Amino acid sequence: MSTSASADVASADVASADVARPDVASADVARPDVASADVARPDVASADVASPDVLVIGGGVIGLSIAWRAAQRGMRVTVADPEPGRGASRAAAGMITPISEAAYAEKELFRLGRESQRRYPAFAAELTGITSEPTGYRQTGTLQVACDADDLALLREHQALQESFGMTVRRLDARECRREEPMLDPSVRGGLLAAEDASVDPRLLTRALLAAAVMAGADVVRQPAAEILSARGRAAGAVLADGTRILARWVVLAAGWNSGSVAGLPPGTAPPVRPVKGQILRLRSLPRGPDSPPGLLARSVRGMVHGSSVYLVPRQSGELVVGATQEELGADTRVTAGGVWELLRDARTVVPGITELELTEAVAGLRPGTPDNAPVLGPSALPGLVLATGHFRAGVLLAPVTADIITGYLTTERLSGLAAPFTPQRFSRPAGARLWK
Amino acid sequence: MSTSASADVASADVASADVARPDVASADVARPDVASADVARPDVASADVASPDVLVIGGGVIGLSIAWRAAQRGMRVTVADPEPGRGASRAAAGMITPISEAAYAEKELFRLGRESQRRYPAFAAELTGITSEPTGYRQTGTLQVACDADDLALLREHQALQESFGMTVRRLDARECRREEPMLDPSVRGGLLAAEDASVDPRLLTRALLAAAVMAGADVVRQPAAEILSARGRAAGAVLADGTRILARWVVLAAGWNSGSVAGLPPGTAPPVRPVKGQILRLRSLPRGPDSPPGLLARSVRGMVHGSSVYLVPRQSGELVVGATQEELGADTRVTAGGVWELLRDARTVVPGITELELTEAVAGLRPGTPDNAPVLGPSALPGLVLATGHFRAGVLLAPVTADIITGYLTTERLSGLAAPFTPQRFSRPAGARLWK
Repeated sequence: MSTSASADVASADVASADVARPDVASADVARPDVASADVARPDVASADVASPDVLVIGGGVIGLSIAWRAAQRGMRVTVADPEPGRGASRAAAGMITPISEAAYAEKELFRLGRESQRRYPAFAAELTGITSEPTGYRQTGTLQVACDADDLALLREHQALQESFGMTVRRLDARECRREEPMLDPSVRGGLLAAEDASVDPRLLTRALLAAAVMAGADVVRQPAAEILSARGRAAGAVLADGTRILARWVVLAAGWNSGSVAGLPPGTAPPVRPVKGQILRLRSLPRGPDSPPGLLARSVRGMVHGSSVYLVPRQSGELVVGATQEELGADTRVTAGGVWELLRDARTVVPGITELELTEAVAGLRPGTPDNAPVLGPSALPGLVLATGHFRAGVLLAPVTADIITGYLTTERLSGLAAPFTPQRFSRPAGARLWK
Repeated sequence: MSTSASADVASADVASADVARPDVASADVARPDVASADVARPDVASADVASPDVLVIGGGVIGLSIAWRAAQRGMRVTVADPEPGRGASRAAAGMITPISEAAYAEKELFRLGRESQRRYPAFAAELTGITSEPTGYRQTGTLQVACDADDLALLREHQALQESFGMTVRRLDARECRREEPMLDPSVRGGLLAAEDASVDPRLLTRALLAAAVMAGADVVRQPAAEILSARGRAAGAVLADGTRILARWVVLAAGWNSGSVAGLPPGTAPPVRPVKGQILRLRSLPRGPDSPPGLLARSVRGMVHGSSVYLVPRQSGELVVGATQEELGADTRVTAGGVWELLRDARTVVPGITELELTEAVAGLRPGTPDNAPVLGPSALPGLVLATGHFRAGVLLAPVTADIITGYLTTERLSGLAAPFTPQRFSRPAGARLWK
């Protein structure tokens, strides 16, 4: 006679493939920084010690995409993450909307996002083709709406910015907005429709990426990296939390906001990432009968609500993701009364019908923020150590292009021109010479 | 590198004592309505079949309180509940505030609540004395506050009602309210202080009750009752969902909103209970250091907020319970975006500081409502079947007095005068003769 139910925050297990490999690198392998052998590719006697070509630290969308692509190119890859897909990727809404993340100074970042967006259909189709796992990829567009006169003015500025970037967006009046999305509140004043925008379900995506990486030959070790190892002035692998040493020619640091705090990084190589908290909600439509209406929204809606901002991302399953707060509170992942209240307040201002939906989850994730809100991509000052972090709010969007850039570098030792504005070195330039402030 | 956290809705297990008794009544016991033996107290040959004096159907605060008290009086008691303490008791806030639940026509209900409140200190102390389990009982009072002129008018009506019932309440002006509770919003216009009010933690209470009942000799079978058995015009026990038959002299139906729908109830005996959904939130203060301030509130606060109503119940642990919606939606236990939003909206109007608190749980429970909002206590039209249900919002408050009333009846076959207005028979009287409409 259980008569109570809870907002279910139980963890759907992201990773299903059993890919943990015991005894990857045995404990008696000499610590590379004291060994005399070529520790960059150590010639280890013990047969049960594998030394991959690439050790990827971090198994979120970025790390798993890189692992998959690198393994596809024939590299031996090991991913180290205690819980693949359980970090910022798990909280993310999965919008593939390059323009919305770009601000005035960020044309280069917009271009990178646009390029990743262009690659998404093939990326998602290939993943599903190989693994039979869905990714939730849908190209249904984004409708950006404004709720009052000030919001409308902001919307016009957005339109001008988007057009200056060469984007085609369609301006809709209030009536056209409601024709596109009948559940919008009558007070919505106008909108911008970006038909090319898409979305993906990040939890499905990480599951598919994990399966694809493993199918391509990658190993996944469920341990966090405790320390980066280096020898002869070059990154040589890492020690994991359980003491396991993994020696590798390349170390790719893709550990999100944790990337700057892994031990063993020589001075000047730690990427300047910090945690930026985001709270996000998952709502669910009632189970649908054959005659039931479809979900509340046909496409992602971004609302500017009296100066505040909210997005609602619908999924084919009936799930509706509402996000997100942006809080500078350090590594705090508490869901707060105020965060949930603000999201619900703004979401119901735009789409009042959400009040009827089940609230199935409230979660907080930590995005890897950087001083200029752009990612950190490419070789660090320590040879052999490659950075792929700092994607802030755009990790899901930027996963395909990041994987191509990093894998290209690992195989050719040349960095794609796409990544030129995003190298780690930009943070060591004199302030006046930086692209971003 | 797990960087996300969830509003923890994981279930603290209410019942810890391992009290399930296997093979209570074996499957080959003759079905009492076809047996010729005295099935009211059957003389069963098989040694592993126990026939208790009392079978209590339902292990919430009401059923467990009755089981404990009846076992203390030497009766052999079995409680049947698939998950003791997991129904409405688990969702409840635990306010012991008899006046706030009473409306104009409900003076008799107020008297019953007042009597139960009077018994609470000894009830809680005895429970903890026997089991060493805390109940969270605190007599810290209730402050009822009003937010606008209309709310203030309502508050004055409440005061008049309370005084007509003989209660002593103290009227506070806005400044006095904030002196008592400094975290109240400056817009609070005035309040009523009921110093005798108390609160209890219903999850701790059910755990303690379960332990006390078991220590007093009661058995707990973790199965729902599937059917009430009767023989010779008298209740004789029940069949549980797994087929187990338990024969007993007395059957006490204390299954909350499910009490009316158990099979086997002869016409006219099913109590008129319906589920009334309540959504409730649990917030938590940040972990306190030695120099940290105490929780936001010193006592329970009931807010009248622009015609809506909300309560905030602080616990010694730093937990703050915010409730509750009241929804007529049948047996629906979904937590909804709208329910959570309304609770947060009203709670932050009264105490803005709640926005900083962690939201640890949102839960919906189903209260057993009746046509007159009062409980159904005492013998039903079927001899041997005793009802203890329909406590609506006041199950926690009314548990001590309900247990005394029902146990008194089981041992003497006379019903306390306290229960006279609450007998099942009131619903079969002609409408004009009913106490409640």
